[in-house]
Amino acid sequence: MEKANKKLNAAIIIIGNEILSGRTQDTNILTISNWLNGLGVKLEEVRVIPDIEKNIIKTVNEIKRNFKYVFTTGGIGPTHDDITSKSISKAFKIKYCYHPEAYRILENYYEKGKFNLGRKKMAKTPKNASLIYNPSSAAPGFFVKNVYCLPGVPSILKSMLGGINNKIIGGKKIISKTLSLRTVESEISIPLGKIQNKFKNLEIGSYPFFKQGKIGVSLVIRSNKNKLIKKCFVDIMKFVKKKKIKIIVNK
Amino acid sequence: MEKANKKLNAAIIIIGNEILSGRTQDTNILTISNWLNGLGVKLEEVRVIPDIEKNIIKTVNEIKRNFKYVFTTGGIGPTHDDITSKSISKAFKIKYCYHPEAYRILENYYEKGKFNLGRKKMAKTPKNASLIYNPSSAAPGFFVKNVYCLPGVPSILKSMLGGINNKIIGGKKIISKTLSLRTVESEISIPLGKIQNKFKNLEIGSYPFFKQGKIGVSLVIRSNKNKLIKKCFVDIMKFVKKKKIKIIVNK
Repeated sequence: MEKANKKLNAAIIIIGNEILSGRTQDTNILTISNWLNGLGVKLEEVRVIPDIEKNIIKTVNEIKRNFKYVFTTGGIGPTHDDITSKSISKAFKIKYCYHPEAYRILENYYEKGKFNLGRKKMAKTPKNASLIYNPSSAAPGFFVKNVYCLPGVPSILKSMLGGINNKIIGGKKIISKTLSLRTVESEISIPLGKIQNKFKNLEIGSYPFFKQGKIGVSLVIRSNKNKLIKKCFVDIMKFVKKKKIKIIVNK
Repeated sequence: MEKANKKLNAAIIIIGNEILSGRTQDTNILTISNWLNGLGVKLEEVRVIPDIEKNIIKTVNEIKRNFKYVFTTGGIGPTHDDITSKSISKAFKIKYCYHPEAYRILENYYEKGKFNLGRKKMAKTPKNASLIYNPSSAAPGFFVKNVYCLPGVPSILKSMLGGINNKIIGGKKIISKTLSLRTVESEISIPLGKIQNKFKNLEIGSYPFFKQGKIGVSLVIRSNKNKLIKKCFVDIMKFVKKKKIKIIVNK
């Protein structure tokens, strides 16, 4: 492993012109983030970059130094715009070549005579990369050191995450408590700010919402320390009661 | 204007723990990207970063040098986690203070005696920033040089974009042509790659999909040059016909 960050953090690099062009709504951030929460790893940055080799190399090299785990999505299919494997090879200065196991998996998957050049491309990885198996459509992802390369198609990506659970050494599960209130942010910002000051190690988020024509604010307390969350919640409830604010959701 | 990039490109910085934590599905990338397409400006990078001052300053300073237009979303409300205005002030080394016009707008918006400290915070911007008016909920966004600061709430953000149309000096509208085929990527990757090589200035994307139990591939040609798109399309249709691939969508 590279001299990676000691914190249990992660970053995602979305390699995808289709997200930047506004053609496709990304949902992979949400999927990976919630999966990481369960493993006790905190997602701390996301980058969406185009399918351009030099951008991929530059971004991967920068990000892999600063985060413990890096996940890339997209660009591992058979077409000309699928350049992730080659770019990762270049980023790590490792030869880009057929991966014997990936080759066998794909050769077995396709009917005889149908394992064409485009399909063979999906068997190429940085030399000696470890494979991430694909229970949906055979073509595997792979990882090199702390960089995990996954496909962009959301359903396939989802099906592959379970296979690397045991590769991610995480921490205590990150939990969150949500309190949705019938109020507006500007009514509660002062007491809430004081509570955040008191609980410096907790993340307290405040998110206004509109639902069925009514406005409200969701407060979200987030940490891997349940006791601290409970203490903070007690303090929040004090001003909620004092201000006679209606509670909509408490979970 | 800073010595900004001459290309008509843009980047988005999403300031939002709620996106990184997996609590909220971002939709602002899609909104801003499609709006930029209409103005002939190409979105070339997105970063999602946490609500941490030093991260915001570092990211803004890096991104504003490399892109013609920069849009930030989130963090301009009244609560403790809304630190965008202050951070942008620090990034530009400009005083963070009450903006007289923003102050008047908010003072008029709230009932007498209800313009409290939390609400007043929303009138603070980098000194002499230009305002971006908010037809939904009064609290304005602002811009400094090439950095445009918008709210995170999608409906409010949408309502504010029209107000800065005339600030964005764009180019020819970016158009895209989509051809959805009943095939798989690995069947067409070779001829498609050859066409991409021939039309180096066009962006040809290939996106597999699953719909109603059937698989297919959408090819998306994207450019501000309609003639070039048409020429490329003719070439694609040649191999589609030759391979007897069924066309599902042609638009």
